[in-house]
Amino acid sequence: MPKKEKKKLAIIVHSGTLDRLYCAFILGSTATAMDMETHLYFTFWGLNMLVKEGLKKAGLPATYKHLEEHLKKKLGEMKYPTLYELLKRMKASGLLKIYACSPTMQMFGIKKEDLIPEVDEIAGAAAFLEIALDADITLLV
Amino acid sequence: MPKKEKKKLAIIVHSGTLDRLYCAFILGSTATAMDMETHLYFTFWGLNMLVKEGLKKAGLPATYKHLEEHLKKKLGEMKYPTLYELLKRMKASGLLKIYACSPTMQMFGIKKEDLIPEVDEIAGAAAFLEIALDADITLLV
Amino acid sequence: MPKKEKKKLAIIVHSGTLDRLYCAFILGSTATAMDMETHLYFTFWGLNMLVKEGLKKAGLPATYKHLEEHLKKKLGEMKYPTLYELLKRMKASGLLKIYACSPTMQMFGIKKEDLIPEVDEIAGAAAFLEIALDADITLLV
Repeated sequence: MPKKEKKKLAIIVHSGTLDRLYCAFILGSTATAMDMETHLYFTFWGLNMLVKEGLKKAGLPATYKHLEEHLKKKLGEMKYPTLYELLKRMKASGLLKIYACSPTMQMFGIKKEDLIPEVDEIAGAAAFLEIALDADITLLV
Repeated sequence: MPKKEKKKLAIIVHSGTLDRLYCAFILGSTATAMDMETHLYFTFWGLNMLVKEGLKKAGLPATYKHLEEHLKKKLGEMKYPTLYELLKRMKASGLLKIYACSPTMQMFGIKKEDLIPEVDEIAGAAAFLEIALDADITLLV
Repeated sequence: MPKKEKKKLAIIVHSGTLDRLYCAFILGSTATAMDMETHLYFTFWGLNMLVKEGLKKAGLPATYKHLEEHLKKKLGEMKYPTLYELLKRMKASGLLKIYACSPTMQMFGIKKEDLIPEVDEIAGAAAFLEIALDADITLLV
């Protein structure tokens, strides 16, 4: 009997701010907890946050900058997992694949060795579109 | 003969600014007018706008703040429906379901009784993913 | 034997900033290179950039404004195609269709003759939803 194929979630992570990264990572970690394959394709500001020590520097966008300290304090009080903890949790499930956008790396002068080791693959937009064609849910954050 | 199932639109409303809420609500009200089921899952800044009297305070993001007064005046002159009017119009169709993101409520200290009565359900990301798996169109605004 | 139908990508281009327009246009030009039909529906700030000479004025959003000059310089050094060049490249493939959102035109007082000639159709949200119902990948940028 053929193994039932897993459902797939694909997210383009274009944003690099705390609010939107949490949105992507909460969706992703919920998906892996639901036994869904999760594909996160990091581009632009999102990819810039995947450099080593990058995720801990994430803040709020200009519109909400004044709420940044309050939100960070609140997340600390709630003992809410950090972005990197959520990423490692997804990774530990064996269901997460992380892609780094190659044109973005060139634009911002980012090298493979600058990125956190959890990145699986450096890939262009064609790789993402192939994944999205096969996904059950595709989002851009 | 089995009843034909309706098409489904699912939107994560992450944004809380006038421009993006209009985008979500125009898509949603057009979808209900086309007899599609519409599911709006409000999270982060989007959810913050669902507190009572919240939608009328929506403004433009920092990048476009200087255009806010002009746009609001123009919408008034056009007698364009307000955000709350669009929401109630969708609701009146019987085809809209509104979800409030439970982790966001905890992060921002928002209680059920703070929210407008049109909210149908307080739910986590898993509930949204189940809906999206079954939707014909899924977007994040 | 019936001709195999092409895969379809549909993007709502709500954003008007350089980073997000590049995201949409790189996905779109990659899709047309993969022989996919590409439908770009421009609304709000995105549509505002389709006025003649508009695309060359695209800058970064408030959060990243300080990086604008650096990024533009870098793109120039890389001889990266401009936004308008990418748009014309997609158009030349015969696989791109560009829609301008009619309510946005009214809100911002934009007339058909103000727009670049590559726009194929002025259409409302219902037209976009019909396309998205038939698309293999749908995104909002």
